[in-house]
Amino acid sequence: MGKKQAVNIHKSNLFSATNLIDKKKCRHELTADEIKFFVNGLLLKKVADYQMTAMLMAIRLNGFSTNETQALTEVMLNSGTIFDFQDPRVIDKHSTGGIGDKTSFILAPIAHAAGVKVPMIAGRGLGHTAGTVDKIEAVEGFRTSLSLDEFKKSLTQFGLVLMGQTDQIAPADKIIYALRDVTATVDSIPLITASIMSKKLAEGTAGLVFDVKCGNGAFMKTKSDAKKLAKGLMSTAKRYHKKSLALVTNMNQPLGNAVGHANEIQECIDTLKGHGPTDLTELSLQLAGAMIYLAGITKSLQAGVVKAKKMIQSGQALNSFYELIKRQGGNLNSLENLPAASEQTIFLAPRNGYIKSFQTETIGKMIQKLGGGRTTAGSQIDLSIGLFFHKKIGDKVKKGEALVTIYHHQNQKNVVENLLHDFKMGVIKLSSSRVEKPELIYQILENKI
Amino acid sequence: MGKKQAVNIHKSNLFSATNLIDKKKCRHELTADEIKFFVNGLLLKKVADYQMTAMLMAIRLNGFSTNETQALTEVMLNSGTIFDFQDPRVIDKHSTGGIGDKTSFILAPIAHAAGVKVPMIAGRGLGHTAGTVDKIEAVEGFRTSLSLDEFKKSLTQFGLVLMGQTDQIAPADKIIYALRDVTATVDSIPLITASIMSKKLAEGTAGLVFDVKCGNGAFMKTKSDAKKLAKGLMSTAKRYHKKSLALVTNMNQPLGNAVGHANEIQECIDTLKGHGPTDLTELSLQLAGAMIYLAGITKSLQAGVVKAKKMIQSGQALNSFYELIKRQGGNLNSLENLPAASEQTIFLAPRNGYIKSFQTETIGKMIQKLGGGRTTAGSQIDLSIGLFFHKKIGDKVKKGEALVTIYHHQNQKNVVENLLHDFKMGVIKLSSSRVEKPELIYQILENKI
Repeated sequence: MGKKQAVNIHKSNLFSATNLIDKKKCRHELTADEIKFFVNGLLLKKVADYQMTAMLMAIRLNGFSTNETQALTEVMLNSGTIFDFQDPRVIDKHSTGGIGDKTSFILAPIAHAAGVKVPMIAGRGLGHTAGTVDKIEAVEGFRTSLSLDEFKKSLTQFGLVLMGQTDQIAPADKIIYALRDVTATVDSIPLITASIMSKKLAEGTAGLVFDVKCGNGAFMKTKSDAKKLAKGLMSTAKRYHKKSLALVTNMNQPLGNAVGHANEIQECIDTLKGHGPTDLTELSLQLAGAMIYLAGITKSLQAGVVKAKKMIQSGQALNSFYELIKRQGGNLNSLENLPAASEQTIFLAPRNGYIKSFQTETIGKMIQKLGGGRTTAGSQIDLSIGLFFHKKIGDKVKKGEALVTIYHHQNQKNVVENLLHDFKMGVIKLSSSRVEKPELIYQILENKI
Repeated sequence: MGKKQAVNIHKSNLFSATNLIDKKKCRHELTADEIKFFVNGLLLKKVADYQMTAMLMAIRLNGFSTNETQALTEVMLNSGTIFDFQDPRVIDKHSTGGIGDKTSFILAPIAHAAGVKVPMIAGRGLGHTAGTVDKIEAVEGFRTSLSLDEFKKSLTQFGLVLMGQTDQIAPADKIIYALRDVTATVDSIPLITASIMSKKLAEGTAGLVFDVKCGNGAFMKTKSDAKKLAKGLMSTAKRYHKKSLALVTNMNQPLGNAVGHANEIQECIDTLKGHGPTDLTELSLQLAGAMIYLAGITKSLQAGVVKAKKMIQSGQALNSFYELIKRQGGNLNSLENLPAASEQTIFLAPRNGYIKSFQTETIGKMIQKLGGGRTTAGSQIDLSIGLFFHKKIGDKVKKGEALVTIYHHQNQKNVVENLLHDFKMGVIKLSSSRVEKPELIYQILENKI
């Protein structure tokens, strides 16, 4: 049976790595030492990537216990630099991601203005999801590639930093994530938990706020899965003596009105000025309030949210945002003139009714089709295109009323035609009868330590 | 979540290969075209090996339908040279392998002597299983690396060829098998079926005899799994209009008395001379008889077995064996003087009783410990060491009677001590009460076309 060549591939660890895959394949729990052996072996190239992907699929299909997940988190965390600022005011937020999710640019300045230190290390977009780091690059000159020394200096001296991921933090996660991404093993709650936590724990925070999104524009489609993920994240945080709060939130429609890159930054500025969309404002205040509360600046979450509101009303949050931009090399004048595609095409309501639903993930893919998504890691993305949703679920609309404005370029008529067609064919669904406004925040979970 | 680098790994097929893994992960059936795309993609390096192993684990855990298995067989078969001799007398045998399984050297000459053309392309050993090709190399000068031209010429002119696997036959299976071997995905009945059939179908036979072994020295541990595999092999054979017969046989103890390399060849010669061990003789006659019957030389299996016996009695089978050796460069004189280790240590019955059981797979590993197994593909193996089992399950033994002779070298005292200890501690179990002689052949399945 062609056995001859098998060992050519992998001499040094034929028995051990293969045996561990076999163990997980047979639904046995791996020990912390075994997980450490496997992941460190991957880094040392003693475990091959094709062995890791077989293991990942076995984990995805057979499950991974809380102990296994924590062991994986630990070894990925330890694969890179780990900060520990020993400061109760260092708090970060992590969102599991969604369409139009731009709260970072709002909550970070709010929290900073309230006295929280925010060490935000964020991702770039791929496929239908946009990245925080890409969006902020709509601000001319803004540097997202900082050294870890700069990161540390900014955090301790200024108290707010927003940068892209680096090879020095949890490199094992980086390698494993890349393999998961091309082997259909992303959608595993334990693997998602370990991936998020290995990076967030390295930032040296005292506490973490999680925005676990759920719905048709999120990784987690159901509330029950989202809650499971939230609990996994919080239990790992607790093990590392970090306070945490998790909000399980609605991602069945874009958050706010703007989806894209530069237009989302514009919406954040509007929100920081106090006139943002209701849902975006509310969620940002809740998350910022949670950070303020976890930092010990207020005694309750409610008081944190009240303080967050004040930071907007007083203009202090906006000032923090401007400071951040200046510190990281951004040109404040460019905010008056963010990239914007020249053409606008409007999708009009085909009939009277109420907005019933959005195919939210498809909206993410539309941004990609317009040139605002990455298909390969190196590719440039167009920050100037975007979508603006004039109406949200539950809104009453009249035939001919503007539902979506598409910002595009002159040479994109075909793409735009397709988008209009898709909107009509179900990406936005209308109902003849009244539709309830959906809940924005399903649940708030708190984990004291 | 570290998405940036994902696509660096694999740009060209990000969506398709990943989507197909996702499909199998979600338990959907893949189409023949999808399987073709995936496997051909692997050959063209458009599908990465780490994607293949994730797919293999998904197949192992979620299953693979008959249609999927046949599609995989087809694409692996088509990845290399395919012979078609258009001769009803071209029949081969495949065994799923076991300890002391040496029937090829007996049945092939028997069948050849009876008029069957036998195109035997066999494997080398790895780990605890020994390989047909390795064993025959105990015959000085015997060439197992033949070109496909030599293969064809030998088969058509002489009617019997025994050679090692080549890169030109089912190369896709070779690559996939090597990946399975190090990712714990060997033990999948559909994958085993496709692997065997892609190679056997390429040999250009009119029919195939399968020896599907089951028990503690075989891949298939249970009769039900062995029967499932037998049916899978036969249904694939039928699809390619090949007659087939499958014997589900007992592998709960070594077949014959000799386990090793050179000593197994010696036992085959003894069997061809008419004085081999009962079980080995019986199984070889049954399998050879099945080949004679499938070739249309006799009208029934029983008549085939009768003819097979005559080939031994008349000396014609032994002549065919000698002819084969001469044709492939072997030195007939070397048969009188096969490699044999100088030292013998005997494991004695520790008490009176009946042989109850063998840990058969462990016996395979013992050969490896003595130097008769490969741990890496290139490594040399020692053909001269071996084990000889004087007693089989059901045999009555007296305390102090020889149970096993270990053939070894002078410098192997420690290894031998360990083997003696292992034999005592359960590799051979004795019972105080009488033990039934086990059935050798559990079932014979026939598939007419």
